[in-house]
Amino acid sequence: MNLFELPARLGGEEVTEILWETPDLRVERIVSAGQASPEGFWYDQEEDEWVSVLEGEGEVEFPGGEKRRLKRGDTLFLPAHLRHRVSFTTARPPCVWLCVFGRRDGRADSR
Amino acid sequence: MNLFELPARLGGEEVTEILWETPDLRVERIVSAGQASPEGFWYDQEEDEWVSVLEGEGEVEFPGGEKRRLKRGDTLFLPAHLRHRVSFTTARPPCVWLCVFGRRDGRADSR
Repeated sequence: MNLFELPARLGGEEVTEILWETPDLRVERIVSAGQASPEGFWYDQEEDEWVSVLEGEGEVEFPGGEKRRLKRGDTLFLPAHLRHRVSFTTARPPCVWLCVFGRRDGRADSR
Repeated sequence: MNLFELPARLGGEEVTEILWETPDLRVERIVSAGQASPEGFWYDQEEDEWVSVLEGEGEVEFPGGEKRRLKRGDTLFLPAHLRHRVSFTTARPPCVWLCVFGRRDGRADSR
């Protein structure tokens, strides 16, 4: 698996691949090629998420309109239930996200 | 924090930064600039580790002499207690590792 090798078909939907998964964590590569979340859609996740952009650019929007542009190499932490949507991704080069998901507060959830 | 922005001082020791840590997982960026593990030294880790190289090249050696060269974007999974050492890293560009550590078998450890 090479993080910079793009999926054969791109352009329709985002391509998400799980690179490592345990009961505690999940590492995903997501390749977006110009896609954005639907208007009015908000992710509201059970898990904390650490996001990075390895290639291309992406933009994350928060309720209220604040936007965070992520260039190559930029990282962002999205605590569980912090609502957000992807407002923009570059098509060329595609936006390669590397994301790590973990349970909120880590092991504390298992109490 | 930008993954491709190099630490100011490089060349002496590897520079390890913890980017995200919970009781369940740890995300680290390690920048090596030509360093390798000492001869005869083997990592023997309690945790599973998912490794990727974001820039430069690195090489991981296993007991018995097998070596795995990792170029930009390559990934490798190192189960807990799989002994290994870093046998080579490029100095220019430096080798930028992005590593995710997780408890062996995930949540099962908490039984």
